[in-house]
Amino acid sequence: MTAIDPRLAVNASAVGGAVDMTHGAGGRAMADLIRDVFHKHLANDYLAQGNDGALLGKVSGRLVMATDAHVISPLFFPGGDIGALAVHGTVNDVAMMGARPLWLSASFVLEEGFSLAALERIVVSMALVAREAGVPIVTGDTKVVEKGKGDGVFISTTGIGVVADETDVSGSNARPGNAILVSGTMGDHGVAILSKRENLDFETEIVSDSQPLHELVAAMLACTPGIRVLRDPTRGGLSATLNEIARQSKAGMVIREAAVPVKPEVAAACELLGLDPLNIANEGKLVAICDTADAEALLAAMQAHPKGRDAAIIGEAVADDHALVRMHTRLGGMRIVDWIAGEQLPRIC
Amino acid sequence: MTAIDPRLAVNASAVGGAVDMTHGAGGRAMADLIRDVFHKHLANDYLAQGNDGALLGKVSGRLVMATDAHVISPLFFPGGDIGALAVHGTVNDVAMMGARPLWLSASFVLEEGFSLAALERIVVSMALVAREAGVPIVTGDTKVVEKGKGDGVFISTTGIGVVADETDVSGSNARPGNAILVSGTMGDHGVAILSKRENLDFETEIVSDSQPLHELVAAMLACTPGIRVLRDPTRGGLSATLNEIARQSKAGMVIREAAVPVKPEVAAACELLGLDPLNIANEGKLVAICDTADAEALLAAMQAHPKGRDAAIIGEAVADDHALVRMHTRLGGMRIVDWIAGEQLPRIC
Repeated sequence: MTAIDPRLAVNASAVGGAVDMTHGAGGRAMADLIRDVFHKHLANDYLAQGNDGALLGKVSGRLVMATDAHVISPLFFPGGDIGALAVHGTVNDVAMMGARPLWLSASFVLEEGFSLAALERIVVSMALVAREAGVPIVTGDTKVVEKGKGDGVFISTTGIGVVADETDVSGSNARPGNAILVSGTMGDHGVAILSKRENLDFETEIVSDSQPLHELVAAMLACTPGIRVLRDPTRGGLSATLNEIARQSKAGMVIREAAVPVKPEVAAACELLGLDPLNIANEGKLVAICDTADAEALLAAMQAHPKGRDAAIIGEAVADDHALVRMHTRLGGMRIVDWIAGEQLPRIC
Repeated sequence: MTAIDPRLAVNASAVGGAVDMTHGAGGRAMADLIRDVFHKHLANDYLAQGNDGALLGKVSGRLVMATDAHVISPLFFPGGDIGALAVHGTVNDVAMMGARPLWLSASFVLEEGFSLAALERIVVSMALVAREAGVPIVTGDTKVVEKGKGDGVFISTTGIGVVADETDVSGSNARPGNAILVSGTMGDHGVAILSKRENLDFETEIVSDSQPLHELVAAMLACTPGIRVLRDPTRGGLSATLNEIARQSKAGMVIREAAVPVKPEVAAACELLGLDPLNIANEGKLVAICDTADAEALLAAMQAHPKGRDAAIIGEAVADDHALVRMHTRLGGMRIVDWIAGEQLPRIC
């Protein structure tokens, strides 16, 4: 999806004016906003129940639940917006449990004065990507805070999914000898946000990779039911994700810098900005860890899927009591890949 | 629960300092905050999984999902705090579907500079009331926004529950002739918040009624499996809730002012402030609608429960194409009970 998706423009109607405190007060103004903006675009049988929660029906399989707050700035960026991101982020967190996402909830904190047209554009975007992902938004909530007590809109999404009995995916399952794969290029999302925020103009526009990964995960599990770990390297990037998994699994990791896919334009932007692409957030990529014997077949399954075309095997888990993540550099050395101690890019998701 | 619950003071440790942007950046500072504040107090087997979502296991029965954003100001108030409210609010929304709440998620938007000690006090409070309610917080997320882009802390909670096959509770189920009940006094929460916010000093301290209602609902359904409607009159108060149900059910409502329980001190405060207790938010009360034949037994079951002691039958649903809510006033007249058009009390929950 590009920054200005024509499908969004076609769907949005001309809602005028701005959010005011009455839109959060529980009265008629709130009921009208919910009807005219939220229910209008997100319409489904669950929302049509009209209650303070949604009746979802029965499921078989083990349940999974994941939640994410989204505070990204700016709200609209090359490759997406906060609405699409809020859907993708939670669909992906559910998928990273090896689960099939079924339903989403969404809660909104609106700032007084925020443009209702911008809000509608965001809701239309959520509706579009939720429909494309096949995961309906079944219930929601809206609150309003005074001007200067928020920042336009924050969106928290929660997802429910089901995981098959034979699936056992967890950050604690990596074992020495396992192969580490990534599904594509690193750093696209963070650099897209940063370039928009700082008004940087690169020769090639860098767009966020914000996308849902549940269908890729389903294809991967169909090929390799024994996948041990799945995680999406969002905030903190690949460095943080590998360090989290290393800590959970009490294993070391060794990766090869030359094997980690990075787009040339992202690498160039990072060099210019003094950033390390390994520390930069992604919103449509995953890390997978599996037995070495499965690695080539899994790689082929990933590369055969449109969302895993640039997949690569980047390294392996190793025995290491200190659970360090290390990297063979392009220059032939070896360095520790620490997770960032503090802040590299605030409000990246 | 009173404003200063000694159990909170005992549990809170001396975490110093303030939230900074690194606490939301996905690196080590965030991991430490999650470990030292969130996991420390909310500890359970689901959080211990350490993944970006929680594996919950299998359930039988129909699933229910509800979500709420909480932006209440002030964060600490007589009778509770934003943490307890966030747990109670979503437990109650799940219970109002006639469901048994099983699991909660919580996502936090923190403002840079917010006191870590205050955050810990809020998390301790959430842990306490979640444990009392028997509904664990199984997964969460934390984001940080710059000073002046938030207001201390906002918390979004989402709940999952299961509803028995024989239960059919919905705002659209009210029929002419049905009885309307409330579980207790109206307006306590809103007046407690307002008095704290405006530094008003009443002779008797008015405390919020923030409390979980799922056990009361279970006792009510055990007595009257055919309960038609359950809803908690939060934002907009009883007026908004009855109007919502009337609109959903396409029925009118007639209530008797003299039958609606209001504490004398709340009534006095409302008179002083020019507010109508029927428009004021509650956080631990419910409206129930049932067949007239069941009403006396249901009332007795409610009054026999500690959270329904002051329950009352306040009126009945009637045939009315305009779905108006009307009230026999204490003075012998009849007036329309409209929901508030706009804002009466902003950021009440």
